[in-house]
Amino acid sequence: MEARQIMNLDASPSGSPRSRSPDVPAKATLLDEYMADCRRLVLEELDQQLPRAHRLRRALYDLVLEYPLREAKALRPTLCIATARALGGSIQSVLPTASVLELYHNAFLIHDDVEDDSDRRRGGATLHKRFGVPVAMNVGDAMLALALQPLLDNLRVVGLGKSLRVLEVVSRMARESAEGQALELSWCRDRTWELSAIDYFRMVRKKTSYYTFIAPVELGAILGGAEARLLPVFRRFAAALGSAFQIQDDVLNLAAAKTAYGKDHLGDLWEGKHTLIVLHMLQSATSAERTAARAALARPRHLKSEAPGAADRRSQADVDLLLSLVHRYGSIEHARGVARRCARRAEASLKLLRRRLRPSVHRDVLEELLEFVVDRDR
Amino acid sequence: MEARQIMNLDASPSGSPRSRSPDVPAKATLLDEYMADCRRLVLEELDQQLPRAHRLRRALYDLVLEYPLREAKALRPTLCIATARALGGSIQSVLPTASVLELYHNAFLIHDDVEDDSDRRRGGATLHKRFGVPVAMNVGDAMLALALQPLLDNLRVVGLGKSLRVLEVVSRMARESAEGQALELSWCRDRTWELSAIDYFRMVRKKTSYYTFIAPVELGAILGGAEARLLPVFRRFAAALGSAFQIQDDVLNLAAAKTAYGKDHLGDLWEGKHTLIVLHMLQSATSAERTAARAALARPRHLKSEAPGAADRRSQADVDLLLSLVHRYGSIEHARGVARRCARRAEASLKLLRRRLRPSVHRDVLEELLEFVVDRDR
Repeated sequence: MEARQIMNLDASPSGSPRSRSPDVPAKATLLDEYMADCRRLVLEELDQQLPRAHRLRRALYDLVLEYPLREAKALRPTLCIATARALGGSIQSVLPTASVLELYHNAFLIHDDVEDDSDRRRGGATLHKRFGVPVAMNVGDAMLALALQPLLDNLRVVGLGKSLRVLEVVSRMARESAEGQALELSWCRDRTWELSAIDYFRMVRKKTSYYTFIAPVELGAILGGAEARLLPVFRRFAAALGSAFQIQDDVLNLAAAKTAYGKDHLGDLWEGKHTLIVLHMLQSATSAERTAARAALARPRHLKSEAPGAADRRSQADVDLLLSLVHRYGSIEHARGVARRCARRAEASLKLLRRRLRPSVHRDVLEELLEFVVDRDR
Repeated sequence: MEARQIMNLDASPSGSPRSRSPDVPAKATLLDEYMADCRRLVLEELDQQLPRAHRLRRALYDLVLEYPLREAKALRPTLCIATARALGGSIQSVLPTASVLELYHNAFLIHDDVEDDSDRRRGGATLHKRFGVPVAMNVGDAMLALALQPLLDNLRVVGLGKSLRVLEVVSRMARESAEGQALELSWCRDRTWELSAIDYFRMVRKKTSYYTFIAPVELGAILGGAEARLLPVFRRFAAALGSAFQIQDDVLNLAAAKTAYGKDHLGDLWEGKHTLIVLHMLQSATSAERTAARAALARPRHLKSEAPGAADRRSQADVDLLLSLVHRYGSIEHARGVARRCARRAEASLKLLRRRLRPSVHRDVLEELLEFVVDRDR
């Protein structure tokens, strides 16, 4: 599939000869190629949005493009573009907003890397390891600042009504993300582990799903011209997809082969992350096991910048204990099952929307995303 | 003066008996009291804007109010409110936007404190020293996120035209601030000292003046209903005021009595800051002196978290050398003179606007700010 297929306002239906001709990839790779095309379009859009002045390019805007230019899936722009295009919206009407999602995502990545003092991101050194904490923080702040202008320029492209609704969604998205991050940080600070699945889902919805799934899909739906009464269905579809995605991410962290998974294997246990898996294990364990597990989780988070094995930090023995309990109580299988149920909820919502979506690669992509979130191995 | 005098739509003219009655403070304290009133109104507004949910208050929103609640001047809201009110605008129309300025300012303070690893801010421990870097960074990001909604709610209060112009100014303000910060950081990274006064003024305009003076005054002018052709005059007034303020800040850092000045005495020399004073000294010095001064400035920045006197960091001898050269070439007096000339340029712009401003405490406050920026001792 070529970028112009995404560009084309009247994309041919998925069943037509054209979209199944030899030029068009088989279904297994459709999603990958569509995402790659979205990524290319968004990078061009971002580059075009940035001021050209040489001095500022060197001091700031080349660094703004640093993370986006590294290998990435472009999941958020893809969701936004596919939703808008499946509703019949033009690529021109959705691309600036899709690029804003990429700005937010990469700003969060830069700030997260500083917060966690991470060494690597997308195959390279993290921004603060290369340029120092002040530069990295400012680049993140700059990306949040740059996100506003394309949304104001939307007025000339998609009109007042849609532009204002887009701004409202982005405003809420930014707030929800900060609230989700704050909730998780407060659990870490207070060593809170008496948490239900509902607490977990609320945190995931705010921290991850809102800016990764809910806002991208809702923005695509608004820009694609969806009727107002359908927006809650789009949001339910996206929220369920987001929960499935995050739980599968937690599963992969503990279950994936070390080589395939992009992030640190068992990193979630080293970090003492509040995953559905650990919460299920704590609820299933005996009182004595729970006490031991909570003691292992209560030790301060492992910090990469420190010498390994520092006495009062989480140890290999702690991680081994947690992992053995996770296996004993089948918590990974439990989480896999929950992820599958979330994906089925998303599928049910998408079925309700299906008749409103044009038969097209865009609709196919949304359907493939359902499989992607639970079948992926990285 | 009481808050209701700011609240009052038809504030009595400055020459009237009411505003000069014994209840009303003498001119020397008018500005202080006006600022204190603006601060109180903005804090009430901020508190009202924040979500109420107990869990989120504890995890996030109490921390959002942490810096704003500490003792501060509220210079930015004051400029915004006084400008709008002097033009006849209501307090209701300007207060949400003034509170957004306070959110941006405090977000920048939190992120700056992390970047500089500062210990103290406004009489208390910095946010990241109290709650850790991840919490502090997220609180800063949350404040930037929270800044958007009041600007969207403006539509119902001040109408579409003004709301959109306000959003454009805030968008530019956020971008200019990030660019200014990036320029100064690039000078530090590249050890750039071959800089003219023009380079200095461009950096100060972007880094400090835009969000402290230019945007507050321009936003006040827009919300107060100033004619479009007057906006450039308001901007010139504010930009000149901003330059005077920053240069005076640099002067105070080197010249003020240790007790009166709020920040570290000689901190700018310890940090190797690019001030007009140091740039003037470098331009005035002999070739041999300049080489010695640049060597002293080239050593890495002093970091508070390190043990004092670490070998390859800037030393007391370096600071003594720089200070002696600054005194030898009268660079502090030079900077004082430039600050006064900037204040006179601001005064000239304000005179052009005077007939358009209602005779009122608000206009008086703008005039007092002219004296404040160069006569203050802290």
